Amino acid sequence: MIPGFHAVRESLLKPQKQVHEIWIEEGKKGSRTDELLHLAKARGVLALYKNREDIERLVPGITHQGIVALAPGFSYVDLEDLVARSSVDPGFRVVLAADHITDEGNLGALIRTAAFFGVQGLILPRDRSAQVTGKLLKRTSGAYLHLPVAQVVNLGRALDTLRDRGFWIVGAAGEGSVSIYEFDWNRDTVLILGSESKGLSRSMRDRCDELVRIPGKGTVESLNVSVAGGIILAEMARRRLKEKP
Amino acid sequence: MIPGFHAVRESLLKPQKQVHEIWIEEGKKGSRTDELLHLAKARGVLALYKNREDIERLVPGITHQGIVALAPGFSYVDLEDLVARSSVDPGFRVVLAADHITDEGNLGALIRTAAFFGVQGLILPRDRSAQVTGKLLKRTSGAYLHLPVAQVVNLGRALDTLRDRGFWIVGAAGEGSVSIYEFDWNRDTVLILGSESKGLSRSMRDRCDELVRIPGKGTVESLNVSVAGGIILAEMARRRLKEKP
Repeated sequence: MIPGFHAVRESLLKPQKQVHEIWIEEGKKGSRTDELLHLAKARGVLALYKNREDIERLVPGITHQGIVALAPGFSYVDLEDLVARSSVDPGFRVVLAADHITDEGNLGALIRTAAFFGVQGLILPRDRSAQVTGKLLKRTSGAYLHLPVAQVVNLGRALDTLRDRGFWIVGAAGEGSVSIYEFDWNRDTVLILGSESKGLSRSMRDRCDELVRIPGKGTVESLNVSVAGGIILAEMARRRLKEKP
Repeated sequence: MIPGFHAVRESLLKPQKQVHEIWIEEGKKGSRTDELLHLAKARGVLALYKNREDIERLVPGITHQGIVALAPGFSYVDLEDLVARSSVDPGFRVVLAADHITDEGNLGALIRTAAFFGVQGLILPRDRSAQVTGKLLKRTSGAYLHLPVAQVVNLGRALDTLRDRGFWIVGAAGEGSVSIYEFDWNRDTVLILGSESKGLSRSMRDRCDELVRIPGKGTVESLNVSVAGGIILAEMARRRLKEKP
């Protein structure tokens, strides 16, 4: 189930995304509804008017704005596929890794941000981590369609694999020795973000080639993990744009 | 009520923050608990062991980690006070304004980010906006103690007041004509962020001296509002650091 206008629109716009049918709440009108009807028609996707109760039953507890698409479930990709897909543009590849981020809102915002900056993929550990659910997909406003996500049993081993393929392993940590503005981002990078409560785990820190920090005023210790991720990915994008030949 | 280790610790560390007493869940041990007991003792704040039920009753539905402080409620500041407090460092003052941001998680993350970068204050409209609640204070991990927040009836009028005091009014919008990397941040600035669903309202846009955008890859339209705010505040801080005499 894909709830909400933006997510449904994104799904319909993406030819490779299968959509079975879309449900629109009875009585819903306006240019946004018209656009969805138009997109659905163009793709031969059935559009049905349903009452609010039917829609609520389909996506309980989720903000849907009276619009839902029925589509085959979200699929994780294989780590190997993710690395293969990221083979474009060597020297400027970025893979994001989430070290046990448990808040769905944070993970959703990170997926949206990673897709916004054209990150090659996201790696999540299978246990003790938020996972990609319908509610989370909604939070990404459809951005998940642009970001391959791999689920791995052992995050440490996944990082070792990426290092073997030439990636630098960079962790975000308040006590990092190098500022994100000093670090040379002109290389293939895995950026690891730590959990909300504990930051980067010991075993992840030990795997990092570098720990980077975001300079602040000093009165407040740390940032929300999705905000920190956004700031670092933006800085990478800025520098790469500037330094690319 | 101030729930959670970080928020309670911040409150105890801040001499001007009144704290009546702290409650710790029975059986709770460890270096973090010891630190709180030590800080409370140093300030003459009573520390009580309570059972889980008592704590739950005090902060229902809120993650508290077995630690709560009882303190006089959060107080909004007057807009005039906020402007007066921000009189330090002219040419580099930043005030954040939230144009009807409704999600508590987003507002909490913004407060934390604004405090992290030493922003002079935050302005919130009274109606149709998330407000500063106990749950939200928890989300800021104590950062709210470092950020004056003004609640105003009419956000447009508040912006007019700030313009009269020499501030530039800058709005964040995906279709902004100037990139955040091109804009000259070396001036007193009010940064306005729009609501999650609608972005900046018409009347706010009309008041902006400039609309700025965050450059992305182009596949995904927009960012989560707290992430966008973080990226722009970080860029302001970076440039000001660089350009300051």
